[in-house]
Amino acid sequence: MTMLTDRYADEREAIDTELRSAVERLPAEASRVAAYHFGWTDAAGRPATGGSGKAVRPLLTLLAAKAVSGGWRSAVPAAVAVELVHNFSLVHDDIIDRDTMRRHRPTVWKVFGTTDAILLGDAMHALAFELLAGTGGDRAAKAIGQLASTVRSLIEGQLADTRFEERDRIGLAECTAMSEAKTASLMGCATTLGALYAGGTSSQIAALRDFGLRLGLAFQHIDDLLGIWGDPDATGKSVYSDLRNRKKSLPVVAALASDRPEAAELAGLYARPGPLDEIELRRAAELVEACGGRSAGEVAAATLTASASAALVDAGLREEAVAELNELAMSTVGRTR
Amino acid sequence: MTMLTDRYADEREAIDTELRSAVERLPAEASRVAAYHFGWTDAAGRPATGGSGKAVRPLLTLLAAKAVSGGWRSAVPAAVAVELVHNFSLVHDDIIDRDTMRRHRPTVWKVFGTTDAILLGDAMHALAFELLAGTGGDRAAKAIGQLASTVRSLIEGQLADTRFEERDRIGLAECTAMSEAKTASLMGCATTLGALYAGGTSSQIAALRDFGLRLGLAFQHIDDLLGIWGDPDATGKSVYSDLRNRKKSLPVVAALASDRPEAAELAGLYARPGPLDEIELRRAAELVEACGGRSAGEVAAATLTASASAALVDAGLREEAVAELNELAMSTVGRTR
Repeated sequence: MTMLTDRYADEREAIDTELRSAVERLPAEASRVAAYHFGWTDAAGRPATGGSGKAVRPLLTLLAAKAVSGGWRSAVPAAVAVELVHNFSLVHDDIIDRDTMRRHRPTVWKVFGTTDAILLGDAMHALAFELLAGTGGDRAAKAIGQLASTVRSLIEGQLADTRFEERDRIGLAECTAMSEAKTASLMGCATTLGALYAGGTSSQIAALRDFGLRLGLAFQHIDDLLGIWGDPDATGKSVYSDLRNRKKSLPVVAALASDRPEAAELAGLYARPGPLDEIELRRAAELVEACGGRSAGEVAAATLTASASAALVDAGLREEAVAELNELAMSTVGRTR
Repeated sequence: MTMLTDRYADEREAIDTELRSAVERLPAEASRVAAYHFGWTDAAGRPATGGSGKAVRPLLTLLAAKAVSGGWRSAVPAAVAVELVHNFSLVHDDIIDRDTMRRHRPTVWKVFGTTDAILLGDAMHALAFELLAGTGGDRAAKAIGQLASTVRSLIEGQLADTRFEERDRIGLAECTAMSEAKTASLMGCATTLGALYAGGTSSQIAALRDFGLRLGLAFQHIDDLLGIWGDPDATGKSVYSDLRNRKKSLPVVAALASDRPEAAELAGLYARPGPLDEIELRRAAELVEACGGRSAGEVAAATLTASASAALVDAGLREEAVAELNELAMSTVGRTR
């Protein structure tokens, strides 16, 4: 299939230009750390390529705007605001989770220390609101209200995630709620803001919001599958990464909640003190699969993607952009990183 | 003199009510940690009193609004937004500085861990913008733009502060710039937002902004004096707290920059590896004083306070509220904690 990264060159360039110019407004030290985080420079500040994210969220904003009005330029600040919030949360979450690698490179706190990572996150967080404020008027106030309450959801999700680590049994419903708060909410906000800046009606905004939310949850299911069975060369994480960290991700929680006899063995591995060795990790992955955790994740991702597309039917949106959104959704489900 | 805390009962109550209702919107776990941080509960969640801050910044917002229009109710969300940003930065700075005590109680990261402290800070940061966004219209967008660029200043100041720790010689000008970014900018923002929400003219807003900025810098000079000579029972910090942490605060930088022979001995104590003992700490305080660091701070604070008051003269502001702002300024310079 066509790689997502080959498409939407104009939109990607507009996002990149706005993001770079926003980052230049940061204090010099924070701007330098941001340039590393976004993959524009290496740790020594020399120009670099690669290491940028997939920019799915800002693309969602621009495609949502196109679906309403055909244009997307007015939504660029909102797209970049969403990308800044996403990256602020990544930088802080990496400190919290003590993750050392992201996008095939050492994380910000690992290279520059916790102080700079906290402050870069804070700076990107404020910058997102500053960008939206700069668009002026009541629309800016509405967009900021949406984005700020989404940050509240992100934090709720991250708090739940850290609390899950300390608990033995997690229900599938609360695990799904956590994923909605942690991932789906920001993708729902991305499409909402695109529709808002394109002047969408409330029913157009609601349809695009539902699309973003459902796609976001599908996205998290795929992410959780890649966290176990993803190719390390593609994901940039270690093999069996989530099992190594004993993450209670969706496939693991689904497996533990099953009535299969293998669930008890999996629970035992997760409860055992000390790190799991390579043989135990491979066994844990087999157990998740045997308990139906892998197929549950695949089915959920496919169902949610279809349901995301369904949200756009008969919503009075432009056909060409709807096709692009559906294509983006399909490539998200088909992704390998 | 009349204690600041005895005055403005109506304004304080309105701030407290709005702050508590805002904090209730946070995710339950974050709300619980916030209640501890604001001194409403103890670490176990039992109701407590004391430990709240002085609420100088939100009071500045409300008094600035009064100076413009006589009323202050419409500025309450802005006052609370400023207080939330102040507290978000305190919670994150305490992690960065590894400070274990604030307002006579263990800091948030010390009680609840770094994860909860990072997330509470992030949550209060977003909540501040959400409150302003809720006031709606272009005024909200303007206020958010001001507050977001102030957060940028706070981060710039905090970055400079941490970089200073690694450097031997700091100029008085760059130290002042750091204090302006770290402290004065938010007090300037507090009065700006008050004036904005009261519908002030651009010259009224500029006068109140100058008042806040100058008072903020005076405030930092006093803070730095208390960081060396403050009574631990009043400040809630250890005796010679800033010297113990080898902080390059304004009086220390002024002393090191002097041509007094004692400056070299002070520089030697600051450069020496390992913690300073009580005798060395007392000696360091004597050296700062002998080099004129203490009187420089006292003169600067008094001069800046007078200059803050001067900014309000002939600015077309209401006399009664101007008198209250001046009184607040005087009590800030006269404060002992």
